[in-house]
Amino acid sequence: MTDTRSVFRVKSGKGDITVIYFDNAATTIRKPDQVIRAVVEAMQTFGNSSRGSHEGALCAARTIFEARRKMDHFFHGYGADRVVFTSNSTEALNIAIRGAISEHAHVISTDLEHNSVLRPLYYMRDHEGVQVDFVAADGKGNLDYADFERLITPQTQAIVCTHASNLTGLIVDIERIGRIAKEHGLLLIVDASQTAGIIPIDMKKMNVDLLCFTGHKGLMGPQGTGGLLLSDRADVKPWKTGGTGIQSFLETQPGELPTRLEAGTLNGHGIAGLSAAIDFIEQIGIETIREKEQSLLERFCDGIRELPGVKIYGDPTKERTAIAALNIGDYDSGKVSDMLSYQYGISTRSGAHCAPRLHRALGTVSQGAVRFSFSYFNTEEEVDRTVEAVKEICQEGAYR
Amino acid sequence: MTDTRSVFRVKSGKGDITVIYFDNAATTIRKPDQVIRAVVEAMQTFGNSSRGSHEGALCAARTIFEARRKMDHFFHGYGADRVVFTSNSTEALNIAIRGAISEHAHVISTDLEHNSVLRPLYYMRDHEGVQVDFVAADGKGNLDYADFERLITPQTQAIVCTHASNLTGLIVDIERIGRIAKEHGLLLIVDASQTAGIIPIDMKKMNVDLLCFTGHKGLMGPQGTGGLLLSDRADVKPWKTGGTGIQSFLETQPGELPTRLEAGTLNGHGIAGLSAAIDFIEQIGIETIREKEQSLLERFCDGIRELPGVKIYGDPTKERTAIAALNIGDYDSGKVSDMLSYQYGISTRSGAHCAPRLHRALGTVSQGAVRFSFSYFNTEEEVDRTVEAVKEICQEGAYR
Repeated sequence: MTDTRSVFRVKSGKGDITVIYFDNAATTIRKPDQVIRAVVEAMQTFGNSSRGSHEGALCAARTIFEARRKMDHFFHGYGADRVVFTSNSTEALNIAIRGAISEHAHVISTDLEHNSVLRPLYYMRDHEGVQVDFVAADGKGNLDYADFERLITPQTQAIVCTHASNLTGLIVDIERIGRIAKEHGLLLIVDASQTAGIIPIDMKKMNVDLLCFTGHKGLMGPQGTGGLLLSDRADVKPWKTGGTGIQSFLETQPGELPTRLEAGTLNGHGIAGLSAAIDFIEQIGIETIREKEQSLLERFCDGIRELPGVKIYGDPTKERTAIAALNIGDYDSGKVSDMLSYQYGISTRSGAHCAPRLHRALGTVSQGAVRFSFSYFNTEEEVDRTVEAVKEICQEGAYR
Repeated sequence: MTDTRSVFRVKSGKGDITVIYFDNAATTIRKPDQVIRAVVEAMQTFGNSSRGSHEGALCAARTIFEARRKMDHFFHGYGADRVVFTSNSTEALNIAIRGAISEHAHVISTDLEHNSVLRPLYYMRDHEGVQVDFVAADGKGNLDYADFERLITPQTQAIVCTHASNLTGLIVDIERIGRIAKEHGLLLIVDASQTAGIIPIDMKKMNVDLLCFTGHKGLMGPQGTGGLLLSDRADVKPWKTGGTGIQSFLETQPGELPTRLEAGTLNGHGIAGLSAAIDFIEQIGIETIREKEQSLLERFCDGIRELPGVKIYGDPTKERTAIAALNIGDYDSGKVSDMLSYQYGISTRSGAHCAPRLHRALGTVSQGAVRFSFSYFNTEEEVDRTVEAVKEICQEGAYR
């Protein structure tokens, strides 16, 4: 395994095959070698962090604390103790939304949101009397930032917003929303699932109160990792409660962060990998990663934009992550994605992408969309082969 | 690395050192080689399961489904779809206790419970009007099974009980409690954190409705894994809500299991390791594992029982897991544990063990206890060296 390989051996029903993987917005299949090595080392040496003071436990505790410190530094947070590890960004968003938003509060969110934001908000609406208004997306998936201010009422407590759409890749100007939140004294909860590791995030500069991230996408860490960073203003009720290794005789979850929001044994092995992933990103440089991904995106879009029947969603004049969502004529997105996979060995994601409101805005509720998402480890050759594949599908004109 | 090594290289502040690891009830530090290999392979080949139909996604989905099937078979469950993966047993217990117990219900639990059971129960008491009665433990940590029936009222909905104490190792007769639960139409929620992988568990024979387990202890799988198995009678409200890869346009978490209780990307890498761990246990045989652990426990207890000042907690006439919790005279348990670690390289756990009610019953609230817990990979030589170490500490008579 070298750091330059660009195709992946994957076990299939027909034995091992190689694929071009363009579903990095779902999970990056290619993890830096040092991430895998860190997980292996952790699995050979870690006790249970915060449970006991012997070397195995301390080894785990030191690595986890170091990972907190790195995440805090990476996102310009409010101290290592205000970094909470979760199993994914969905858990982080549930903790943030259900733990920080009060009963009967008013909340502003957007049409770009993923179900990991929408469903907790709908839950709060249905069970806690929370009122939610959504900033509308237009037919290109853009937001009108003035809507955030227009929707504010005296009851508004929080803005919950993604940092980038997982469907069009549109990057939301969180710093601008942060200024609005600050001016009106609102809590700002950000879903960074699509941006952590891909775009620089500065919680302080952006005025973010609760930053939710996942470890297995742009950060290129293991599955089963993610987290939540809290500003010094944010207060969040405990989510799961249980063993903490401290204050055993207390009947409630201890109040101190990060313990307050972390019950039970952490995924120490995964966090060790995440820590190594941060090192990798810092070594390469997040700007270098972003340039590489953007150049792949542009190369791909340049190659297919003029093809007959190809419709790329979103607004190419706006800042985007390395995502191209498209349809070919009125072909079902699932069929196109399957054809790319079975005939060309190209992995994409089709269907509804867990973003129901945006599909409505884009008019793709029934067709879905074929999403190509690129990572630092993809290559121009892979893009070129894929452009050729899309050309062939367009030329076929129909499924035969 | 071979399957017979019995000491571990652990990174310490002073460089790599080797330790004898007797804290397996907190986490097994030694994972079978095939578990580590499975995690590495998953990290090189897995897409996001249930997100897309390309080979990387299917590869992850197949492995996770196979893991569900294995867990279902291993615990004699009610079908692979009724196996829910969580990040640890604490999350499984929170989902079970807070999702299955109704407001204002009456619940019976025990003094043996870990805070991962107690704190969710206290939460239900404080926020949902749930009444909880505890079957008392005596000075040896034993339960009187007749108490379960005595505590039943017309409002009783559930019994929540550990399968084994994490402090004394006492194995609770769940089959007997299951008969009581069945006779009175009660839900039986079992915390198998200390027994999964160590003692055969048969949900059907034991009449268990909700079985909560962790992957990183007796099952010898990766940290960040665990789960919850539901009987065909059990109904559990969703816990976290979010992306599921199915039914994107539904505003609530989809009702089907396992999706109902699994939002967001699963720890596919960890689950691949857990699946390999189950294979390992099936290959060796759970009875063989138990015999080995019990023989180490007995060898240890035989070596130290008569030493002056040694007090072993629990009841040696009862069935136990491979745990010996003890104190030496009135020495603080933390000091004894530290001495074992720093002077002899022996890893044990001291202090309160997240089991506050049992410490009260045993009279060890302030002293705590030094817990030695053995795994299949420990050796007689390690036990003998540890017996000698305990002898030396006893002979010293005081800390110098």
